[in-house]
Amino acid sequence: MVSEEAALAKFLPIIGWLQQYRRQDFNDDLFAGIITAILLVPQGIAYAILAGLPPQLGLYASILPPVVYALLGTSRTLSVGPVSVAAIMIASALTAPEIQALGTPAESGLILSAEIGAIMLAMALLRMGSLVNFISHPVLAGFTSGAALLIIVNQLPQVLGIKMPTCALDVGCYAQAAQGFSPATLTISLSSLALLIFLGSPLTRLLKRLRVNLSLVTAISKCGPLLIVILSTLAVSYGQLAGYSVSIVGPLPQGFPTPAITFPDAEKWRLLLPYAGFIGLISYVESVAIAKVTANLRGEKIIPNQELIALGSANLTAAVFGGMPVAGGFSRTMVNFSAGARTQMAMLIAATLLGLSVIFFSSSFENIPKAALAAIILVAIFRLVRIKHIIHTWQYDSGDGMAELATLLGVLVFGIEQGITLGIILTIASHLRKASQPHIAVVGRVPDTEHFRNIKRHSVETWHHLLLVRIDESITFANVSYIEDYLAGELKRQPNTRHIVLILSAVNDIDATALDALEIFNQGLQALGKSLNLSETQDQVLDKLEKTDFFEQLKPGKVFARTEDAVKALG
Amino acid sequence: MVSEEAALAKFLPIIGWLQQYRRQDFNDDLFAGIITAILLVPQGIAYAILAGLPPQLGLYASILPPVVYALLGTSRTLSVGPVSVAAIMIASALTAPEIQALGTPAESGLILSAEIGAIMLAMALLRMGSLVNFISHPVLAGFTSGAALLIIVNQLPQVLGIKMPTCALDVGCYAQAAQGFSPATLTISLSSLALLIFLGSPLTRLLKRLRVNLSLVTAISKCGPLLIVILSTLAVSYGQLAGYSVSIVGPLPQGFPTPAITFPDAEKWRLLLPYAGFIGLISYVESVAIAKVTANLRGEKIIPNQELIALGSANLTAAVFGGMPVAGGFSRTMVNFSAGARTQMAMLIAATLLGLSVIFFSSSFENIPKAALAAIILVAIFRLVRIKHIIHTWQYDSGDGMAELATLLGVLVFGIEQGITLGIILTIASHLRKASQPHIAVVGRVPDTEHFRNIKRHSVETWHHLLLVRIDESITFANVSYIEDYLAGELKRQPNTRHIVLILSAVNDIDATALDALEIFNQGLQALGKSLNLSETQDQVLDKLEKTDFFEQLKPGKVFARTEDAVKALG
Repeated sequence: MVSEEAALAKFLPIIGWLQQYRRQDFNDDLFAGIITAILLVPQGIAYAILAGLPPQLGLYASILPPVVYALLGTSRTLSVGPVSVAAIMIASALTAPEIQALGTPAESGLILSAEIGAIMLAMALLRMGSLVNFISHPVLAGFTSGAALLIIVNQLPQVLGIKMPTCALDVGCYAQAAQGFSPATLTISLSSLALLIFLGSPLTRLLKRLRVNLSLVTAISKCGPLLIVILSTLAVSYGQLAGYSVSIVGPLPQGFPTPAITFPDAEKWRLLLPYAGFIGLISYVESVAIAKVTANLRGEKIIPNQELIALGSANLTAAVFGGMPVAGGFSRTMVNFSAGARTQMAMLIAATLLGLSVIFFSSSFENIPKAALAAIILVAIFRLVRIKHIIHTWQYDSGDGMAELATLLGVLVFGIEQGITLGIILTIASHLRKASQPHIAVVGRVPDTEHFRNIKRHSVETWHHLLLVRIDESITFANVSYIEDYLAGELKRQPNTRHIVLILSAVNDIDATALDALEIFNQGLQALGKSLNLSETQDQVLDKLEKTDFFEQLKPGKVFARTEDAVKALG
Repeated sequence: MVSEEAALAKFLPIIGWLQQYRRQDFNDDLFAGIITAILLVPQGIAYAILAGLPPQLGLYASILPPVVYALLGTSRTLSVGPVSVAAIMIASALTAPEIQALGTPAESGLILSAEIGAIMLAMALLRMGSLVNFISHPVLAGFTSGAALLIIVNQLPQVLGIKMPTCALDVGCYAQAAQGFSPATLTISLSSLALLIFLGSPLTRLLKRLRVNLSLVTAISKCGPLLIVILSTLAVSYGQLAGYSVSIVGPLPQGFPTPAITFPDAEKWRLLLPYAGFIGLISYVESVAIAKVTANLRGEKIIPNQELIALGSANLTAAVFGGMPVAGGFSRTMVNFSAGARTQMAMLIAATLLGLSVIFFSSSFENIPKAALAAIILVAIFRLVRIKHIIHTWQYDSGDGMAELATLLGVLVFGIEQGITLGIILTIASHLRKASQPHIAVVGRVPDTEHFRNIKRHSVETWHHLLLVRIDESITFANVSYIEDYLAGELKRQPNTRHIVLILSAVNDIDATALDALEIFNQGLQALGKSLNLSETQDQVLDKLEKTDFFEQLKPGKVFARTEDAVKALG
């Protein structure tokens, strides 16, 4: 029974924390849940519009998917729902001509949710949670800055009241669009921006100086987006701004969505699949990274593969209940965490509040001006552009810095997928370049012991005809020619060497390329009357080599269990 | 003066061997040169036709480019000229619709030569000779088998006398083409194949049993291609086979080409550039691999970067003098080597003989039947299909075996460039997967010494509150989360640990991702009242870390020069 319960708790992490849930936890979660709910309304609508989707897809994605994540996820504070970076990637998929030709954006959005969910669950099945390691932090940082810049450019027409959100980086297009400039819209944007910035750190500092209760300070400072939405909606509704061409969200469907998933066109599913792959990968990596940061501050543990299950199920839920793709959002999670959320109960509360407001108040969302939403996005996104981070990374490690800058520029110039691919390639290239120069040491014996240490750093015994070399990394295609060159150099320096012993204690693997090269190297040694020997070879390496005739080829060279044995036999 | 001469000899390796050149060397080289020249005529014409180019481009590529390589190359036996694998890659480039739309194949062939030459020289300038390490042996083997199969399929129409060389894998296309079947052509192909196979090992064995002089045996067995060409040409010329629709090489331009390079269309140069990149990379990798095999058997040394200069210059020469792209050919080099070539003098002799025959006999090349050339290609290429090699690789290392099979299938199903790319990606993925599990050991002190060894393999002193962990590989994005998990596991096993010391003697680098992760890991430890310390950190790692505030963050954790110091301070 105990083990069954443990297995269930592993699959449903909520069971783990619910068992220890206390009254005080609920008070904390209630406060955080309300604050987060306040953020979910404008973010849900704004990110749907940013993605080029009808606003209700963002709202629906903020209700049931976070509930599913709350049941299955291992992070206690991650806030799952629509996120800005995935939204801009969705926008890039939806504006591709071959996608536009087939069906409506709403249809595409739901297909993407379904595909992202399926991809994540497939990755979980294949236990590919550790794939997250293939995307290094510099690539992620460069991508985030690049995507944030794309979002800012994308939002400018909304802020200026110009109806041309797909201009991207085409200057002429903006010049033409500028004719539709709307002063009323700009007024809303600028006053929203000013208010949001004031409600941020200036107000917080002021209230703290006035010794206002800290929870109240948090609540007030986080209410900015809701306040903006209410004020600007009132301005539109009662200020008769419609005549001034202020763009608004428009009518939403009434009530709660009923489950429905359509299979409009197999071709469209196929065309969207590569986009879904990229969005899913990035969503997963970002979510786990955010979850890890908050979990670490509380000494909790994130299980990558379970996160794939939780996020995949959340995305499938979004697809079925009419929502856009979801992930863990950075700003929302930080709001949730700093508002004091103890567990996912906070997100359950937030989702309930949002669900109620969608059922009862969705008609009041109609008059929200898009300019106010754009201002909210701009303020949330601006912090994500971190040019200084690139400089710091470059100073620490030029290879990583180059990858970060290339990812940023690649995202801006070539597109999101291309930028990420470029960054991954550069990171791996830099990694392989470093891995191609493994740590190697010529060693000798510490007198009166059986210990062998680097001759450059210790005073040790050596032998004229014997060269002992310790290789401190697996021997692979990436480094075997460096190792060959190193050994050739040592042989040149000690031309009297008759026996080489490779100490392989730290060699976990010898791949097929390395084996070929060692065979050819050994043939060369034998032609010169020298022998190649191995010592301290790990068991799994011995097992692999025994499947080949390498030991036959080595003869008279031998394989010694201990370096000491090699010295006794050859020294 | 001496150093100037050495610098010159480095740039012109021919100076090195000419100074020690002896009379006997010339005798050997003369014999090998004649044998290789005999092979150059049919191979030059056949590979040009295989590539979809006019035959003279293959002949011209066999004259001056090998001379340039002889001056600049570091291999003494590599035979540079047209090669089969590059030819099939050129064919795939020339049949791309966007390439066909612009200019003639001959023009494209010369542009490819020029671009490949320029790319190789640029790589030499950037000292990228070691890029060769990115293509592992299994990928190269899988690619070679796949390309050889493509060539065999490609040659079938020629062998059967069907005029449809671009059918590739489309079965219906062949059925239609079968109507043009030519019995006369098939007769030529089959008799050529039979004669070539007989002139190979069966004849060699027979002659050896008859105790015929070994050089004579070599000479006779290598004359097969020339004999086939002469006999089949005579059959066409005097057998009035033209009425039987036997396809022939056709008229060649008279005499030797004059230098000329045209710039027909910038767009075409741009379109061909990616193909040139792939062909150049593969040509370079294949050439160096072949050169290394023969150099190793004689104890000579190949300098990768100088090979880039030599092969790049040879390709530029080909472009200027009307030749197709060149590389080191496997079969030709082996013939040259086994015929006893001592130096590149053999290739200088072969090129001179070929040059003379092009000037004086090119009109007699007109009637060579393509079926005979196809038979020569088939026999030369058949050995390159090595299915067993895949099985052996798989048995030794399943990751490498998978990469080899995927490359082979990728080449056949998706195309040459795609197959190679797939293979490289799989190799790197398998490499990263292995690299993500570095060797880590908890260590203790060998009693009465300052040596620290693995607690699992040695009886050593340990301390309750102190965890000493030696990490035997650079800490990077690929393995840092494994290391974190390992440390977390050890902390769980020894919950009383107050101080962790990471022994970094074998850590050559900590990249930006790893630094981020270590910082977060350290924050977690500090939250639990534990300290993180480093010891035996290498200088270049210390230098990098000192640029950040990591040491500040570690406090009260410290950096110790020796592990012994850490034990004294914390133990």
